[in-house]
Amino acid sequence: MNFLAKLRKIQRKNESLLCIGLDTEMSKIPEFLFKWEDPQYEYNRRIIDATKDLVCAYKLNTAFYESVGEHGWYTIHHTLARIPEEIVTIGDGKRGDIANSSERYAHVFCSDYEFSGTTVNPYMGKDSVDPFIRRRDQCAFVLAVTSNRGARDFQYLSVKGKPLYEHVVAAAKKWNTRKNIGLVVGATRPAELRRVRSLAREMPLLIPGIGAQKGDLESAVRFGCDRRGELAIINIGRSILFASSGEDFADRARDKAIYYRNLMNTYRDKYFSN
Amino acid sequence: MNFLAKLRKIQRKNESLLCIGLDTEMSKIPEFLFKWEDPQYEYNRRIIDATKDLVCAYKLNTAFYESVGEHGWYTIHHTLARIPEEIVTIGDGKRGDIANSSERYAHVFCSDYEFSGTTVNPYMGKDSVDPFIRRRDQCAFVLAVTSNRGARDFQYLSVKGKPLYEHVVAAAKKWNTRKNIGLVVGATRPAELRRVRSLAREMPLLIPGIGAQKGDLESAVRFGCDRRGELAIINIGRSILFASSGEDFADRARDKAIYYRNLMNTYRDKYFSN
Repeated sequence: MNFLAKLRKIQRKNESLLCIGLDTEMSKIPEFLFKWEDPQYEYNRRIIDATKDLVCAYKLNTAFYESVGEHGWYTIHHTLARIPEEIVTIGDGKRGDIANSSERYAHVFCSDYEFSGTTVNPYMGKDSVDPFIRRRDQCAFVLAVTSNRGARDFQYLSVKGKPLYEHVVAAAKKWNTRKNIGLVVGATRPAELRRVRSLAREMPLLIPGIGAQKGDLESAVRFGCDRRGELAIINIGRSILFASSGEDFADRARDKAIYYRNLMNTYRDKYFSN
Repeated sequence: MNFLAKLRKIQRKNESLLCIGLDTEMSKIPEFLFKWEDPQYEYNRRIIDATKDLVCAYKLNTAFYESVGEHGWYTIHHTLARIPEEIVTIGDGKRGDIANSSERYAHVFCSDYEFSGTTVNPYMGKDSVDPFIRRRDQCAFVLAVTSNRGARDFQYLSVKGKPLYEHVVAAAKKWNTRKNIGLVVGATRPAELRRVRSLAREMPLLIPGIGAQKGDLESAVRFGCDRRGELAIINIGRSILFASSGEDFADRARDKAIYYRNLMNTYRDKYFSN
């Protein structure tokens, strides 16, 4: 199944635009899980089991796994194995290198681990992205407008009267011959999100920045969705993942996931009622 | 010792601008090494032992280690342990993320593995680079003009009459309050290399693209060095690393390393004689 079809299917089945960011910092894992061999996996497992009927995707930022030591990639492997096949998985590594090396990264993310989506950095251009879009069932999300403060440093520089990120969007559209490229736009940038959606009407948009980063959820839904009220993948990390620091963390994560999923659907009803 | 002092010291001691890229592809490792537990490490060990008096740096592209499986980071760890303290080590991961996540990557590259240099992607701006430049003895090489074809897609776009990469150089200079930022400029771009050196007279430049990528070595030396004929780190990967596919690979790598080191010094004498 191609990526867009898979995404629409799970968004309909679970009635959800919610992506949970499994950015599982070791320092935030409660004490009692340390009797398990891999507490990080055990944490993820419980979050997944408690929320898998509520999400369209899970996103794993590789930084949080590489930083625990050499076994971090095992944890990624086991975590992915726990996620039902029908749910989109995004390997958030923001990689990008010369073709020869990008090929190796793509091998990791797309072949070894079989993430259904990856994030890639556009600075090095087309040949750095190409290896990530070989398979139609896998999507590369190209960074367009990021949610952090540093986004202002280069992404808004004016090139021929338009901000750099619009040139990234235009290039991504041109490269998108297999219909498996998406874009990353921060929820902290509602005006830019609106603009990007108007330029890329049929691309999936990965939208981080809700919760800890204080992005605007209503705008994320309103401007992030396609005309059918789909294809926005709205990521929420810490405020679901670490909703509680106690033994009830998975239940509290579920409560929060329900809250956010429903709130997104309220906004969907408001702007995309048929 | 701060990074620049360390770099100058080893460049003088070994009379070398040469950086060997340990991009050790599994498929190119000769058969007989597979009786060792970690053939990739064993390959690196022999290359290091055969060339360590000839280089100023070794660069490890993490793509080639992540792609061998979960133990790839162990191989990086063991390889780094084999490199003499006085030689610069560069973790070529081209990472870059929001501050929270970049912090985790920097932890891996700068604290856990203690690379003396890292490569970082500028697209996400200052807060994505900051975690990599906390320590004065460690340098972050910001991608400016890359050696691949895709460099043309965005890096040359004109912003206020100047190519984007010049804005990256200007920003890197502004961020360089600890004197530990460098730039990556491909040897396939001699005119741009000259321009970048004229803009950043005291920054170390990491220059990939010689050998397999057919960059111009004479220009790399001539335009890459500072006025003292130093601070260019000229990376050569495959054409040294895989100089032979037989049991003599380390000896042949040494021959090639001598050849390139000496050729660089010939050009240094030509353009920087005192």
